[in-house]
Amino acid sequence: MPTTKPTIILVDPQMGENIGAAARAMHNFGLDELRLVNPRDGWPSANAITMDAGALERMQPVRVFQTLAEAIADLHFVVATTARPRDMIKPVFTPRGAATEINTHTNNNQKTGIVFGAERMGLINDDIALCHAIATIPCNPDFSSFNLAQAVLLMAYEWMAQNDQTPGHTLNTGDSFPATQDKCEEFLSRLEFELNQRGFFRTEEIRPTMKRNIRNIFVRAGITDQEIRTLHGVVSSLIGK
Amino acid sequence: MPTTKPTIILVDPQMGENIGAAARAMHNFGLDELRLVNPRDGWPSANAITMDAGALERMQPVRVFQTLAEAIADLHFVVATTARPRDMIKPVFTPRGAATEINTHTNNNQKTGIVFGAERMGLINDDIALCHAIATIPCNPDFSSFNLAQAVLLMAYEWMAQNDQTPGHTLNTGDSFPATQDKCEEFLSRLEFELNQRGFFRTEEIRPTMKRNIRNIFVRAGITDQEIRTLHGVVSSLIGK
Repeated sequence: MPTTKPTIILVDPQMGENIGAAARAMHNFGLDELRLVNPRDGWPSANAITMDAGALERMQPVRVFQTLAEAIADLHFVVATTARPRDMIKPVFTPRGAATEINTHTNNNQKTGIVFGAERMGLINDDIALCHAIATIPCNPDFSSFNLAQAVLLMAYEWMAQNDQTPGHTLNTGDSFPATQDKCEEFLSRLEFELNQRGFFRTEEIRPTMKRNIRNIFVRAGITDQEIRTLHGVVSSLIGK
Repeated sequence: MPTTKPTIILVDPQMGENIGAAARAMHNFGLDELRLVNPRDGWPSANAITMDAGALERMQPVRVFQTLAEAIADLHFVVATTARPRDMIKPVFTPRGAATEINTHTNNNQKTGIVFGAERMGLINDDIALCHAIATIPCNPDFSSFNLAQAVLLMAYEWMAQNDQTPGHTLNTGDSFPATQDKCEEFLSRLEFELNQRGFFRTEEIRPTMKRNIRNIFVRAGITDQEIRTLHGVVSSLIGK
C-alpha cells in the first residue's frame, strides 16, 4: 500500500448519520482522513457515532473547514465526484480510472483528495472548478441517485482495489490440498473396476465416453486429497464393504 | 447489457431499512430482482420504503421464501458473499472475479444469484454449502464489517462495471472542442510576440526553454477552442488593447 492515501472531503453534509456511514465506508477500505466543510448540524455529531460502527475513533481526528478551498489547500490533486455532467472543461474519470490517476499522484508523494457534495444537491460548479478532475459513477441511467456513504464506499473501494493483490479467483481448500493426478487416477480406476464388476458399462463402445464423462466431473471440480478419501468411503459404502 | 441479470437474495435480513437500502443500491446498478429468505420483521415493510429512494416500486415484486434452498431453486449459478474464510472447499472470488464468473453463466442464458447473510452474523455454513462459489470483498483487515446494503452495492457495482463501456478517462469539453494545433500555435506565436515586445525573454539563451515551458502548460491541458478565445482575450486585456 502506498504511504499516502486520499483524503475524503464532504462538502455541506447534512445528516450526521451520513457522515458516520461515510466514515465506516472509507475505513472499510483503509482510508482514515476525513474532512468536513460546513456540516449543517455541526461537529462532533452524536448521530454520526450511531452509524460509524466504531470507524471514527480508529481514524485520524476529523477536521472541519468553512470552505472547500480551505479544506483542500494542502492537497496536490483533487477529484470531485458528481453524477450530472457539468458544462465545464475537465477530465472525467470512472471510479476505477480515478483510482488509477490518484495512484499516479500518490506514487509521487503528492497529497490527494476526493470531494463529495451534499446529500441532495451535490457539488456546486464553483467547488468543482477548484478540483483537477471529475469522477462519475457509471450506473442505471433511470436511477442514478446515490446515498452519500455509498458514493464514498465505491471511491474508497476502487482506491483499495488498485493497491490490492487478491487474485480474482482462488480455490479455498482449507486444510486440504488439491489431489495429485495419481491419487485421482487411483480412485477413478477403482471406481471403474467396481462399476465394471456390476455391469455398469453396458457395451464396450460406451465405456470410453462414460469413463471420460465421470473423470471430467472430478477433474473439473479440482478435487482435493480429503475429498478423494471421502469418495473412496462413498464407494466402499455403496458396494457394501 | 445481458438480458439475464443476477438475482439478489437476502437471508434472514433484520431491519427493513437495510432491505430498502439494499434495494436502492442494487437498482442503482440496474438489478431489479430481490428475494428475501425469512425476513425478521416480515414483508412488505414500511421501514424499507423509507430507505429505498423509490427503488422497490421500480423493481420486480420482491418474493419471500422460507429457506435459501427454495429461494435459489430455479437458479443455475449462485455466489455466497462472506467476509470470513470458511473451512469449505469452494472457489473464492473477489467481487470483480465473481462478476466475471457470473457473466460467463448469464452469457449462456443461465440464471444467477448473489446471496447475502444477516446483518450481524452473515451466512451459516449450510447456506454457503448450497452455493457454487464464495465472494469476499478485499478490505481493511482491521475493520472488515460491512453494512448489508454496502455489500450489495459493491457486488451490483462490479456486475454493472463488467457490462459497462464507459472509458476510464475522458475529457469533458462540453460544447467546445479541443483546439487544433494551428489555433494553438497562433495563440502561442501571438503570446511570444507580445512578450518579446516587452522584454520578457531576458536573454536569447533562455528563450527556447521559456517558450517550451509555456507551450507545455497549454498542450498538457488539452486546450479547447473556447479556451483559446478566452486566452486571446486575457492577453489583449493585459497588454491594454
